[in-house]
Formats: sequence, C-alpha cells, structure tokens
Amino acid sequence: MTTAPTRQFTAADYAGRMTHAADAARAAGLAGVLVTPGPDLVYLTGYAPVAITERLTMLVIAPGRDPAMIVPTLERPDAEVAPSARALRIVDWLDGSDPYAKAAKLVDAGGRYAISDSAWAMHALGLQEQVPDATYVSMTRALPMLRAIKGEDELERLASAGAAADAAYLAILRVRFAGRRETEIGADLAALLREHGHSEVDFTVVGSGPNGANPHHEIGERVIEAGDMVVLDFGGIVAGYGSDTTRTVHVGEPTEEERRVHEIVVRAQQAGFEAVRPGVACQDVDRAARQVIEDAGYGERFIHRTGHGIGLTTHEPPYIIEGETHPLEPGMCFSIEPGIYLPGRFGVRIEDIVTVTADGGRRLNNTPRELAIVS
Amino acid sequence: MTTAPTRQFTAADYAGRMTHAADAARAAGLAGVLVTPGPDLVYLTGYAPVAITERLTMLVIAPGRDPAMIVPTLERPDAEVAPSARALRIVDWLDGSDPYAKAAKLVDAGGRYAISDSAWAMHALGLQEQVPDATYVSMTRALPMLRAIKGEDELERLASAGAAADAAYLAILRVRFAGRRETEIGADLAALLREHGHSEVDFTVVGSGPNGANPHHEIGERVIEAGDMVVLDFGGIVAGYGSDTTRTVHVGEPTEEERRVHEIVVRAQQAGFEAVRPGVACQDVDRAARQVIEDAGYGERFIHRTGHGIGLTTHEPPYIIEGETHPLEPGMCFSIEPGIYLPGRFGVRIEDIVTVTADGGRRLNNTPRELAIVS
Repeated sequence: MTTAPTRQFTAADYAGRMTHAADAARAAGLAGVLVTPGPDLVYLTGYAPVAITERLTMLVIAPGRDPAMIVPTLERPDAEVAPSARALRIVDWLDGSDPYAKAAKLVDAGGRYAISDSAWAMHALGLQEQVPDATYVSMTRALPMLRAIKGEDELERLASAGAAADAAYLAILRVRFAGRRETEIGADLAALLREHGHSEVDFTVVGSGPNGANPHHEIGERVIEAGDMVVLDFGGIVAGYGSDTTRTVHVGEPTEEERRVHEIVVRAQQAGFEAVRPGVACQDVDRAARQVIEDAGYGERFIHRTGHGIGLTTHEPPYIIEGETHPLEPGMCFSIEPGIYLPGRFGVRIEDIVTVTADGGRRLNNTPRELAIVS
Repeated sequence: MTTAPTRQFTAADYAGRMTHAADAARAAGLAGVLVTPGPDLVYLTGYAPVAITERLTMLVIAPGRDPAMIVPTLERPDAEVAPSARALRIVDWLDGSDPYAKAAKLVDAGGRYAISDSAWAMHALGLQEQVPDATYVSMTRALPMLRAIKGEDELERLASAGAAADAAYLAILRVRFAGRRETEIGADLAALLREHGHSEVDFTVVGSGPNGANPHHEIGERVIEAGDMVVLDFGGIVAGYGSDTTRTVHVGEPTEEERRVHEIVVRAQQAGFEAVRPGVACQDVDRAARQVIEDAGYGERFIHRTGHGIGLTTHEPPYIIEGETHPLEPGMCFSIEPGIYLPGRFGVRIEDIVTVTADGGRRLNNTPRELAIVS
C-alpha cells in the first residue's frame, strides 16, 4: 500500500487559511465569505459536522474581524473540538429559534458576500430574507481560486492519492475482463483502491463497449466480451484528498479504428499536458487538447470539458474549459481528460491529474497511457 | 432478514406525483417548483444523477405545463432511462454554455417559485441573476408537506425499514458491551442493519457514559465500562426508505437515578405517541413529550426538538417542534425521540418512527422501550 502523509493540519494552518480567505475577500471587494459544511469548511477550519442537514452551520469570515461560526446548539460540543476551534468564535442557536436572525448579526446590510457553492438554497434564501440588502454570490463566481493553489502538504497528499490510484490500475490489468460483468470489475477496482490506501472509493466507472460511449455511464450489469473497449475511470480519497484517473483498455486485439481513436486521445491528452505552465489560461489547456481531436475529425465526439480541479473534492476550480480565462498558477491541480465517444459503439477517455510547477506541469498519475490489452 | 417490498414505482406513479406537486404549487400561489437532485427529485421522477455536482440538473414543474428537466448533455442518456422519462421533457445544456440562461426560459419573470432545500446556492443564485424578478423560496417554506404524506407503497417500505432496524436492536442486546470500544459496537450494529436488509447504513450513534450526554456525539474510541448508560441511535435505508430508532441500554445494574431518568424518557416518548392523531398540530406532539420531562424537573436537559419526518431521507418535514402548527394528516411519518442529557455523566434518548393513522398513531418500531441490561 502507498504510504500516506501523516502530519495533521494544525490550528495554525487553519488560522493561516482563514486569514488568506479574508485577504482574498478584501481584494475581491467582498464584505466577507459565508462558508457552510463541505469542502470549503474543511479547508478553512478542519470541521465537518456529523451530517449536512437543514440545520444551519455557517462560518463567517470578514476582513478585519475574528472568524465566527454559527452552529446548532446540539453540535456545539463537536465544533468546540475542531482543530481550528481556538481561532474561532463559536455562536450557537437552539432548535426552534431562527438561525438566520442570528447569522444576520454577523452580516453587514450593504455588503457583498461569497457563499459556498454547495450551501443549501434554503440557507442562502433564509439569510437573504433577513438581510435583503446584502448581495450574495457563489464562491465559484467570487473567489473561484480560494482552494485552487495547493500547499506543499496538500500536494503531497494529492500525489499519494494519485500513486495509490495508479497502483490500482496496474493491478486491474492482471484480472480477467472477458465474461465478467462491469460491476465485478468495479468491485475489483474498489477493493484495489482500498488495498492501496484509499479510505473512500468515490467512483468506479466501468464503461464497456457501447456503454463507454456515454461519458457518464457509471457501471452496469453488462457482461464484458472479447473485442470490447473498456473505459475505467476511478478515484477516491487518500488522507482527505482526491484521486481521479482514467485509462481505456481493450479486451484482446483491437481493430485498426480502435487503435487509431485511442491514439488520438493519447495525443490530445499529451497536448493538453504540454500546454500547462504558469500564466496560461485554463481554456488554453482545453483548446490544446481539443484541437488534436478536431484535427482528427472527431471534434463533435468530444462532448465535455477537458478537466476539473481536484483537492478536498474531485470536482472544483479550476475548470479546464472554453471561457475560463483564469491563468494557471503553480500549485494548481486538475485533471486533463479528453475523450472521444462513438454512440452505440465505444468510447475512449484518458485522464491524469496534473499540477502546475514553476515552469510547466507535473503528472500525479504516471501509468502508461498506451492502449493496454487485457484478457 | 426482513423481506423488502418488490413492486417498483412506475412511470404512472411518478406522473401522479408530479401532477400532485403542480396542484400543490397552484394552491400555494406558486408559479412552479424547481427541483434539483436529491430526495425531491427521486420522489418526483425516480431520477438520481451519478453525482450531485456543480453541473445544473433541475426539474421545473409548473401548473398547466408539462414537466421539463434540464440536464447536462453528458448526463442526458442517464436521464432518458429514468423511470419517469416519458412523462418529462428533457432539455440538455453543453459544458461551456450557460445552464441558467437555459433554465430561465422555463421560469416566468414575475413568478414565485419553490426550490429544493438542498439545491446548491450557486444554482439558486445563478437563476436569480438570470431571472431577478422572480422570487424564490425554499421548498420547506413554500410546500413543506410535499413529500410528507406517504402512500401505501411508501408506508410499506418504511415499515420494512423499521422492522429491520428493530431486528438489529434485538440482536445487539446479545453482544458484549463492557470492555469494547464504541466503534466496535457501531461496527456490530452496521453489520446487523445490513444483515437485516439495509442497503445503506446512515448512522450508528453509540454514546456511552458521558458521551451519551452530547446528543449528536456519533461514535468514538471510548471503551465502554460496566455501569455505563449507552445511547444507541441507528438507521439506514431499506428499499429506498429510511429507518431511525434509538434505545438506551445499561451495562449491568443501573443506579436508582439512571432508572428514574430512563423511565421519565419512556413516559415522555409515550406521551408524544399518545398525542398523535389527525388534526393535532406538530408542536402539540413536542409539547406532550416535553411536558413530561419538564414536570420531572429536567426541562433544561431536553435540548432538541422531539422529532423529524422520515421517508426518502431521515430528516424531512414534518418537524415535531414548538412553532410548527401544521396539522398532522394520515400517512405522515416522523420520529418521536425525547431525551435527557446530563453533561459529563450520561444521556438517555428513546426514539420510534410513528405514522399517523385515521384515528391515532402507529409505531413502525416495536422493540421494548424499557431499560435493557446488557453485559
């Protein structure tokens, strides 16, 4: 199994991140950021309530003020033992009282606030009702890159996650595919991810034959046959950080067309990777990968963006997509995953996580991208 | 294992629910309801995308129009095989285009819309920006009881879930508690829930000794000792519907005080149950249970609401809480779970799921509520 990093993030780490968030808010002209349970809250405080529910939990970070977090009274004991607790003022609200009225006291009437993307709409609307003159904008709109630049400790975790996923891929090449269901290969993949250090398995996509032509087909009861292309897209969590890699394999000898399509995707993925360096716009990585597929005549068959950021979650900024002009910065981590999908026939996708270095990119997945033949 | 119901919900079931939602929207003065992935969408369409992400998926139900669902292009094949697909118009949007602009075409500028509680704030704010003159309100505010009255097929599933949880409780009484960690008892409980028909285990709270005095303590590494009270609160999913029950057991002989506190909670739970009948306000069930605890002098130690609805999720309307004046109706299902928490010492909570019948209530959990002694 891959060795996971062991240093825990400290109260000082979280305090530093909260200060960074306050500075970023100020620079963006925001009165503050409103953070609800989920990856933003884990990033800033290390706190994750038992469950994300209809009960309001919200961290308020405003430049020039101490961070405050509103929690349900019955979850206060949990919040008080969060690793960041001593850098936070904790305010609780009792079942039956109005949490939005309490939250309103921490929000300036005329301010503009970023709120976590995945905050429940009922919480955003509840707060809007209490403080109608404040304006609210999603975190991805206002501070898209809040968590995008990873620190060294985070990169180490992401590299561990990538290596663990790579080990699972190399091992799955040795299992039998023909005559077995997609769900069986998926179960093998999940077990291998765990064996190699994943604490959670988030997805094991096995798209065989025509199922591979639906880029979000997850897994099914189809029995894999000799002659199938099989898209394997899998990942999970190692030490709190995500893995996500895709390889497309073939059961037995591929046809000339299958080889050709696969090779186009390999070249597209490589072109995307080679476009990575500080200062390049996210969309230029998408364009570089897409151009290869368009030039090969399959532009219409590449029906999704080229990639997404990864960190505490497996889908986060930066998005590698046309229209995203944000420049790459060292420490950003994202997938490069072009694909070609031929409806009713087969699909090919190849995905590595890449991080931006001082002068280029570094792959956090490092298994061969050539078409592997399985049995 | 408990036998789970096997009839699948049909396209006709979903069409009926969507019509019901449109009627409820009209009656509430709404222009429509906006439903994002999660339990509302499962209830109305049977559709659950592979993952709930930053990509907009939204069902729009408006009185007098056919239901329409916006999905990302790459998830369209999944949406098209949802059980309700032929009762729906599916509209897709491509990565890089603006999904809110597309959604805006289905929303009336001046209308008032209910939106799923757990819709991502970024989606609600994105739509607000496109259609600023529409007003938005959370589903729980506008149509709290949309899923609250369960049909016969749903009640059958909830009863199965309750029976399966009961079987797990009866079995856990036979395991050894003293000298084992809370996490070990939790693992036993999870295995028992699965053995008795749960497809998912959502929570296994084991609160021993002082941990039981934190009503949202989940589980920890504390070693359980002779003389401990132990709160066991556990549940999961059977055939898509939730179970949730709590019993408090004692390791060896309890003290006089422990017996007395436990017995007060039993009486409070019974009083709540006896208050259940059609037409009674939700808050009256809370009051009935709370009165028993207040009369016994422990009012300050009952620091949460008496209960919550259950169905496709384990926390949903109706909430059994002071201020909730909605009348009970036959088919509603909710927990009655009073508790007394003595900080630093121990806690007691007893919880059954109850459904409202034509003339009273029926428990979906039926294990003894008396203090069980474990070894």
